[in-house]
Amino acid sequence: MLGVVKMRIGELELIEQIRAGAGARRGAGLALGIGDDCAILRPPKGHEVLVTTDFSLEGRHFRRDWHPADSIGHRALARGLSDLAAMGARPMAAFLSLALPDEILTSRTGRRWVDGFFAGLGKLAGEFEVPLAGGDTAEAPGGLVLADIVLVGSAPVGRSLRRSGGRAGDLLYVTGSLGGSAEELARIAGGGELKRGGEHPHLYPAPRVRSGMELVKRKLATAAIDLSDGLSTDLAHLCAESRVGAEVSESAMPVSAGASLDQALNGGEDYELLFTAPPRIKVPPKIAGVAVTQIGRLVRGSGVSIFGAEGGRRALEPRGWEHFRGE
Amino acid sequence: MLGVVKMRIGELELIEQIRAGAGARRGAGLALGIGDDCAILRPPKGHEVLVTTDFSLEGRHFRRDWHPADSIGHRALARGLSDLAAMGARPMAAFLSLALPDEILTSRTGRRWVDGFFAGLGKLAGEFEVPLAGGDTAEAPGGLVLADIVLVGSAPVGRSLRRSGGRAGDLLYVTGSLGGSAEELARIAGGGELKRGGEHPHLYPAPRVRSGMELVKRKLATAAIDLSDGLSTDLAHLCAESRVGAEVSESAMPVSAGASLDQALNGGEDYELLFTAPPRIKVPPKIAGVAVTQIGRLVRGSGVSIFGAEGGRRALEPRGWEHFRGE
Repeated sequence: MLGVVKMRIGELELIEQIRAGAGARRGAGLALGIGDDCAILRPPKGHEVLVTTDFSLEGRHFRRDWHPADSIGHRALARGLSDLAAMGARPMAAFLSLALPDEILTSRTGRRWVDGFFAGLGKLAGEFEVPLAGGDTAEAPGGLVLADIVLVGSAPVGRSLRRSGGRAGDLLYVTGSLGGSAEELARIAGGGELKRGGEHPHLYPAPRVRSGMELVKRKLATAAIDLSDGLSTDLAHLCAESRVGAEVSESAMPVSAGASLDQALNGGEDYELLFTAPPRIKVPPKIAGVAVTQIGRLVRGSGVSIFGAEGGRRALEPRGWEHFRGE
Repeated sequence: MLGVVKMRIGELELIEQIRAGAGARRGAGLALGIGDDCAILRPPKGHEVLVTTDFSLEGRHFRRDWHPADSIGHRALARGLSDLAAMGARPMAAFLSLALPDEILTSRTGRRWVDGFFAGLGKLAGEFEVPLAGGDTAEAPGGLVLADIVLVGSAPVGRSLRRSGGRAGDLLYVTGSLGGSAEELARIAGGGELKRGGEHPHLYPAPRVRSGMELVKRKLATAAIDLSDGLSTDLAHLCAESRVGAEVSESAMPVSAGASLDQALNGGEDYELLFTAPPRIKVPPKIAGVAVTQIGRLVRGSGVSIFGAEGGRRALEPRGWEHFRGE
């Protein structure tokens, strides 16, 4: 029974912590946040509602010995924000279901871990003015940190960017650079020293929310997807849903400094946007401050081929990297 | 690498299974279901959007040696539906994040378990025409089944029933009967034989979605909450949010056949509705086919007291039962 009482206090405190962090920035569309059976959202008139959910499970999506607590909180939210970005939606609210093991709920070190987790999540939430509007808490069975994040967003009715909107002849673009996340993860896994400051594409990826909204606002794109599983896999998804094939060029790839071509093509978790636009559309070199690169085009048929930097052409098989799967 | 390939297949098949089950009944407000970065919902004009998320974690919310697979699927969805019911919302869509251990993903018995889980979830979803519109899948770390269910619903703007709407003088009502879930769980835990057919308030609870919607439509209630943690705890929540106290009567309690008064007051997981209405409102004896009983009233101040069946009055402390916590 002691365990019961202990957990009850922990859970209430946890909810208070979430509530405190959430209260700082109330989103415009949030009519009722944490504290009732449901949260209430009011999307702007003429808008549709977008919903996405993503697990962040210890041992699958992160490791506590590799990822600092604030990175785990940041990455959990970034996964959901990136899904909204891929459809050009404006974030309205986030919901977090979080189960924590007893050792975290009952120790001072554990408390610091929780503070770090919410600091990372809260900082990114603040950047996009996303209130934490609800969720669930539990003591985790099995001693592992388990999180599920839900993001709700809005976009003008019928204007959300779908994977299925691409047409043969459309040009293919990506935001930012590719492979940086896989490269940083490889360094962490290898026990290499992490640089302080600067960009950390794996630990603190930047979801392209503003770029996605800009694509919708300026009617630039016909289809989009976020690069969570890796270009080779995500491009295959976009092609399958649009019922087309694609050709991309090695030399056109915006490979992150220090990353390999393989990491850029298959690394995953870059959380950049891959989108398509007809040739008549003038796509600017930057969208919402983020560089945009043309990497190829959609063609009739199916399958993706890649042109080598020194000539030749081969099939680009979906080999997106599933992190931590092999353990 | 074998493990990677095995899981990838399992995950794709799982998504196909979800997609197949989901496609059967498309909800009216669902513009885009499984298969893109987000689902797209279009709530009816003049409606607000309600969102709730609930964990169903093995060892916390269910046990695979106690609960049949279809009960676990049913109960996961029922938790979320009941939260919508408590606010009087119409369900629009459900989202399921589901992590399964390797043993389930790779064995024939496991496959049958998954079929059973989706059969239970799908049957209840069909009853309320709730499409499964998305979610996430993963191989579960730690060998445990982990689910998080998200329900999205709609209600006319400003009409959702909140916990905070009760006023001193309002009468207190509950739907259905109380304690049946705790009584059945005690029988399961004790290894007792389960009756075939008939009602199974613990294994297959009936969320009061239609009753909740009827309360909103007929403007009968000032506040509501669902009885998930137990009357003593949930009534305390309603009182705290409404800033009032309450008096209830033992002899008025609609105790389930075979259940004890303690199970009715503290058992939890009955998923009935507790609501309040001013005395001038004529509350019918049944709402959407479910019996309604007046059990007390709200009073000024704070705290809940209960009048004994043989006279006397004592404090009713929140002692809602947290199932499986002690393990």
